[in-house]
Amino acid sequence: MTLTVPAERLRQFIADAFRAVGMPDTDARLVAELMAEADLYGADGHGVFRVPHYVRRIRAGGVNLKPNLRVARERPGMALVDGDNGMGHLVMRFATRLAVEKARASGVAWVGVRMSNHAGPALLYVRMAAAAGMCGLYFCVGNANHLAPWGGLELLLSTNPIAVAIPTLDEPMVVLDMATTVAAFGKIKTYAQAGKPMPAGWMIDREGRPLTDAKRANDGLLLPLGGMEAGYKGYGLALVLGLLAGCLNDAAMGRDVIDFNADDSSVTNTGHAIVAIDPAAFGDPTEFRRRVDRVVHDLRGSERLPGVERVTVPGERSIEKHSARYAAGVPIPPPLKATLDKVAGELGIAALEA
Amino acid sequence: MTLTVPAERLRQFIADAFRAVGMPDTDARLVAELMAEADLYGADGHGVFRVPHYVRRIRAGGVNLKPNLRVARERPGMALVDGDNGMGHLVMRFATRLAVEKARASGVAWVGVRMSNHAGPALLYVRMAAAAGMCGLYFCVGNANHLAPWGGLELLLSTNPIAVAIPTLDEPMVVLDMATTVAAFGKIKTYAQAGKPMPAGWMIDREGRPLTDAKRANDGLLLPLGGMEAGYKGYGLALVLGLLAGCLNDAAMGRDVIDFNADDSSVTNTGHAIVAIDPAAFGDPTEFRRRVDRVVHDLRGSERLPGVERVTVPGERSIEKHSARYAAGVPIPPPLKATLDKVAGELGIAALEA
Repeated sequence: MTLTVPAERLRQFIADAFRAVGMPDTDARLVAELMAEADLYGADGHGVFRVPHYVRRIRAGGVNLKPNLRVARERPGMALVDGDNGMGHLVMRFATRLAVEKARASGVAWVGVRMSNHAGPALLYVRMAAAAGMCGLYFCVGNANHLAPWGGLELLLSTNPIAVAIPTLDEPMVVLDMATTVAAFGKIKTYAQAGKPMPAGWMIDREGRPLTDAKRANDGLLLPLGGMEAGYKGYGLALVLGLLAGCLNDAAMGRDVIDFNADDSSVTNTGHAIVAIDPAAFGDPTEFRRRVDRVVHDLRGSERLPGVERVTVPGERSIEKHSARYAAGVPIPPPLKATLDKVAGELGIAALEA
Repeated sequence: MTLTVPAERLRQFIADAFRAVGMPDTDARLVAELMAEADLYGADGHGVFRVPHYVRRIRAGGVNLKPNLRVARERPGMALVDGDNGMGHLVMRFATRLAVEKARASGVAWVGVRMSNHAGPALLYVRMAAAAGMCGLYFCVGNANHLAPWGGLELLLSTNPIAVAIPTLDEPMVVLDMATTVAAFGKIKTYAQAGKPMPAGWMIDREGRPLTDAKRANDGLLLPLGGMEAGYKGYGLALVLGLLAGCLNDAAMGRDVIDFNADDSSVTNTGHAIVAIDPAAFGDPTEFRRRVDRVVHDLRGSERLPGVERVTVPGERSIEKHSARYAAGVPIPPPLKATLDKVAGELGIAALEA
């Protein structure tokens, strides 16, 4: 039976785990807060699921637990944050707050980040900007290269995501958070575990033929967004987002990217970019939200294809999941529970319980 | 036989046409310069091909030939430009130059645009920013709604494009310019003209089944980027880019979008956004270009799938086309020649010749 855990208990558990490996209390609470939010929003691969991995990296010395987060460069429309190899969540929280603060003065602020680490789901940071009334944009260089250039065989790119949040008035906030591949690598792993064949169009083999056997995923290539017909577009997106989040900030990109699944101790020098846009700089911010509401309302009310029950906007379902899980708790499937129990035993902290 | 016209003659012809319908000489030259660049880069649907359409709109009073381009709002990191319903090319040229100038001072500058018009291919403006040493980002709201929300039937969105240019040192400049659908509507029109079936995955019919008969395109729906497997991603991109380029600037978006193919006289209130990012604000700009070069070099040198002759980066082929057409001239297929001759006759200007 699947255990269901209240968000507050999940936060405690995550914070306990990080304190046990030496993270300062305040930082452990902040990271736990963001990771539990990931679980609440349904980004299951980015919440408590990551505790064993992060703990392993911290114990291997791969993450700096006492980072000196600093603004390395600054102008009115931008800043460059050096994360000093701290936990990505702390670095991105710092960068997002800085972007919002600067945007209040300058209208728009772009904050680049280097020397960071994996920071969980992109939606967290654009939502943070949107909660402060801003439009938020986020790009990053992913922490493992799963993507080849279009027509190529070498895994030189990550599935670099893009996220955008747009505040609304009465309609659900618009929050896009997408990898630039057809399917995320994590999703393919769940198919492999379940022994299910993948749909054609997710991966190709090294001859360029569709690959549907998820267990052979490591022999194949993810198709960039656009698939067989237009994958050069997803390739192009992954590339330019990576250049902006990586090369611009002197963070890792291309061959320099460390596969953080296979390597626990090397500094990843993860790059991100967060942009905050203050609608008040462009006009009346309430009128702006009203215009967004009108578009969202029209889309949600659209006539539908046969068999489609609902037309949604990006972010709508994750908000619903957040409400449901906040009320009923976060499900922890038995294999995850077993992994977390093992970590809890090793760290001498209380195991998760209902 | 296809006529081939030197770029300089193409520019003259375009400027002649616009002068003949009352556009001031300087403006006619500027628009002609940008439209001929579109042809040189191979964006054939956005160059001289558009002269008859633009001339029709100008004669119908749909475009203001004496616009007062002005900065309606400004802060260090942003500006909002009001195009006063001028030609989109002039408005976007003004906005891009402003973004570059502001970015030199503020590091990054985001310029929103309202009250503009169709401005040709996105690549023109991000290349303009990159020629000034900046990274350039561009979004806009397209000038006709060809896209439904994911699962929906109503054409509430345009194929809102995104373009990004990243300057390099020795490698070809990286220039992505893509619509957020699998196939652009213009491409489908060329299939219909040629009587060729479309690949499955470009469009669906109103029952949700693949549509491959290009002549029935008007009964179908474009699939957003991602196609049947992941089209919700392309839908999400088209939406957020439209909200940022449209709603944020109080420009048309959603139901308000005027179909400029069907309506020659209504003010389109086209919205764009151009962002200039000065690499010098982030560090040594030459080192930045060197890092980009390294990534581009690795991608272009990647081992290849069987049957693939070359791995390219976005923008590489359009640069080659530019060189080739600059040297040999721009091909004008006979049906286009006939249309342009007709317009030349009506306007009393010299027809295009070799």
